Amino acid sequence: MRNTIYRPELLYADGGFIANGEVLVSEDGQFLEAPQGVDKPSTQIVDLPGKALLPGFVNVHSHSFQRLIRGKSESRIVSGKDFWSWRGTMYHAASQLEPQDVFDVARMAFLEMVLAGTTTVGEFHYLHNAPNGEPYDDPNLLSKQVIAAAQSVGIRIVLLRTAYLRSGHELPQDPGQIRCFESTSAFLKNMSTLIHDCSTTPSEVRFGVAPHSVRAVPLADLKKIAAWSRANNLPLHMHVAEQIAENAACVREYGSTPVQLLSREKLLGPDFTTVHAIHISTDEIAMLAEANATICSCPTTERNLGDGIIAADHVMAAGIRIGLGSDSQAQIDPLEDARELEYHLRLEQQKRAILDPITAQTLASRLFDCTTVHGARALAIPGGTLTPGSFADFFTVDLNDVSIAGHSPEDLLPIIVFALNRSAIRDVVVNGRFILHDEKHVLQDEIVSRYKETHRKVWQNTRRSDSS
Amino acid sequence: MRNTIYRPELLYADGGFIANGEVLVSEDGQFLEAPQGVDKPSTQIVDLPGKALLPGFVNVHSHSFQRLIRGKSESRIVSGKDFWSWRGTMYHAASQLEPQDVFDVARMAFLEMVLAGTTTVGEFHYLHNAPNGEPYDDPNLLSKQVIAAAQSVGIRIVLLRTAYLRSGHELPQDPGQIRCFESTSAFLKNMSTLIHDCSTTPSEVRFGVAPHSVRAVPLADLKKIAAWSRANNLPLHMHVAEQIAENAACVREYGSTPVQLLSREKLLGPDFTTVHAIHISTDEIAMLAEANATICSCPTTERNLGDGIIAADHVMAAGIRIGLGSDSQAQIDPLEDARELEYHLRLEQQKRAILDPITAQTLASRLFDCTTVHGARALAIPGGTLTPGSFADFFTVDLNDVSIAGHSPEDLLPIIVFALNRSAIRDVVVNGRFILHDEKHVLQDEIVSRYKETHRKVWQNTRRSDSS
Repeated sequence: MRNTIYRPELLYADGGFIANGEVLVSEDGQFLEAPQGVDKPSTQIVDLPGKALLPGFVNVHSHSFQRLIRGKSESRIVSGKDFWSWRGTMYHAASQLEPQDVFDVARMAFLEMVLAGTTTVGEFHYLHNAPNGEPYDDPNLLSKQVIAAAQSVGIRIVLLRTAYLRSGHELPQDPGQIRCFESTSAFLKNMSTLIHDCSTTPSEVRFGVAPHSVRAVPLADLKKIAAWSRANNLPLHMHVAEQIAENAACVREYGSTPVQLLSREKLLGPDFTTVHAIHISTDEIAMLAEANATICSCPTTERNLGDGIIAADHVMAAGIRIGLGSDSQAQIDPLEDARELEYHLRLEQQKRAILDPITAQTLASRLFDCTTVHGARALAIPGGTLTPGSFADFFTVDLNDVSIAGHSPEDLLPIIVFALNRSAIRDVVVNGRFILHDEKHVLQDEIVSRYKETHRKVWQNTRRSDSS
Repeated sequence: MRNTIYRPELLYADGGFIANGEVLVSEDGQFLEAPQGVDKPSTQIVDLPGKALLPGFVNVHSHSFQRLIRGKSESRIVSGKDFWSWRGTMYHAASQLEPQDVFDVARMAFLEMVLAGTTTVGEFHYLHNAPNGEPYDDPNLLSKQVIAAAQSVGIRIVLLRTAYLRSGHELPQDPGQIRCFESTSAFLKNMSTLIHDCSTTPSEVRFGVAPHSVRAVPLADLKKIAAWSRANNLPLHMHVAEQIAENAACVREYGSTPVQLLSREKLLGPDFTTVHAIHISTDEIAMLAEANATICSCPTTERNLGDGIIAADHVMAAGIRIGLGSDSQAQIDPLEDARELEYHLRLEQQKRAILDPITAQTLASRLFDCTTVHGARALAIPGGTLTPGSFADFFTVDLNDVSIAGHSPEDLLPIIVFALNRSAIRDVVVNGRFILHDEKHVLQDEIVSRYKETHRKVWQNTRRSDSS
């Protein structure tokens, strides 16, 4: 086995940076103990002058195919139906996709993530059926397309296969959702088969269980799915409290909000990630903290959708871990998501340094943890850190990029978190292998070209303006 | 005279894009009428395949030297004094700068603007004196350093020379501001001399008059300065209503808010730009609209400072033009500023498409105008547009960049406004000359290297944490 030592100019460590640090990576893609006593002759050295090395970003919540509606959904026509108008556009895109398209669009989104320093994506995947609503011969065909896309790009994926059983309480099936529906038994069977089928794929592929929401999964089914997930030791992810209307519908059906329901039914736990969790009360924050659950926040999407501002101050004060997701792909910029956790509260409260008032470094470190270790924890992978035993997933930044150049030792992390532009990202390594080298991804031209074809195909027959 | 025709794949026109369009540029750097009948043999052709061509961004409000405090001011210690703690850090940086440093830091900020597609900067310049508070032998030395920096980088500059007379009503002079203070007569004399001294510089240099704020300029002086500005036909810029405390101080001194005072004294007008204008009432919006004044909004700075959210919906509904500024250089990203005008209102109101509900294209066009034509109008330059007679200031974007690739004809502008990353900017042309060519600025390495030296010098003797 040939190990590799990476020697950047500055190495991320404990919320700051150290000069002359190095990391040792095994051939099978894990960080090893610091290199004292290493048999140097058998160890490859990679010098990274002028660069800082940081743990890769973890994108906890992605719907890759929604990249197709970027720029298409910035209008509204029916007052009070804003989100559903956006959803109509999104379902239109979803209805058009052949398996090859699912692959091509996912590669485009994953490539953009990699270019932004992301090394792991949690893909909350709910497209299962053919456009006519029938399962494919292999009911996991589209899941496998998304996994293949991740492998093609080189990003680590946790496929959060989504259970989507109904349009809502006492609602008829929405034709826009026919590619999503499965019964609970089919979902569990398909999930088992998928994991089995992929058992020989590399360690970059893992799985999680994603009951879509309390709207789409009735309580009895949710209990079965959660029990199955726990028996199989998988992470559980669910959309929770993104919009007020969603909470109100849950109250009508169950007499309680989603978080109250999940708490009462003992469905929350350290393996549970609530995605969004914007409209939650102080009591509900306490319930999530008590259960040691994670919240996945998606600020660039949430500001695009007009969802509202997560109370990250109260959430962090309660000790709840926050991970981050690019969700609708309105933008793919993990650090913009991180800084918005803080910035949106500054706008609301007209104060500064809300999530940590002590120093810029401690504040930046808190936000950086959201993009890395808390995300890795939510996806149940040993990542988001450079410590021995973790996956060797990391990226480098050019210390001369105009967005971050010039720093004292203590303020490089604040500059990166609050101002880094994607142009500074130079190399991305997943499982010890370069997937981006000096800003270049070997498949970039092909991926972009195929994506543009797919975009044309999906939208060519629709002279609809995006307001329709 | 040799003219040039630029032929991009897509040409910006009226809020959308046209294929096979072209623009004709004269040797002295103006757009000319469309090229029918042009004497082709004497005309140079520049083909720009795979690129879209758009009018350059206009940055209405910049304090270039504040680039030095990026990442340094993300903390607070004294409750209720958040902004002033930030200001303490800023004054510390200002106090350290030798004339050469002013040049080096300005070049760094201007370079980052150019890399983001900016072709004009309005530099609100208030550092005039030596570190000891005495005027330099040439009292315009630092203004000239900033102008020289713009010329070195190639960006068009409107130097908004700032009048700064006092620390505040009934306040002693703040030692942090001694580099700013001038008497009104000195200010007017220096301004005249500066314009005279620069009368032989190229057309990329223009001037404006910037009474700092009602706090720093008493009413009687403000009247003299505004009269002088109007006699000389220059644009007038002033900080107005950024924070609630500033309004309250004005009420204490004059019995009215800044906007009420400016309106009552007939100081507002079509040549007047109020910078920030966040804390203004419906009546005050009507006053600004009635006077046909411009507002310069700086959302990325305002979210960093916790200033609050401008009511862009009411402001636009009243017909007031909004320009945009990078202000403190917390980030330099004109499109992020543009989209935040809309996004911050979505967060506040939990609705979508607030500034224009009709189509994504009309909304994007409104926001794009803020980054271009409205800014040019505020700086009194014929720019921000590709129309004949305007300055030939523009940039190109790579249509294959992952942030924007894939579009229908009607949604390229929405994709650009809501998702473009700086990595897509390829070429920047000012006055008909390339200053960025295929992402490269010829002086980039030198500018970054000198900036890093300045940063080290300014902060080396301060082991203060940024919370001090």
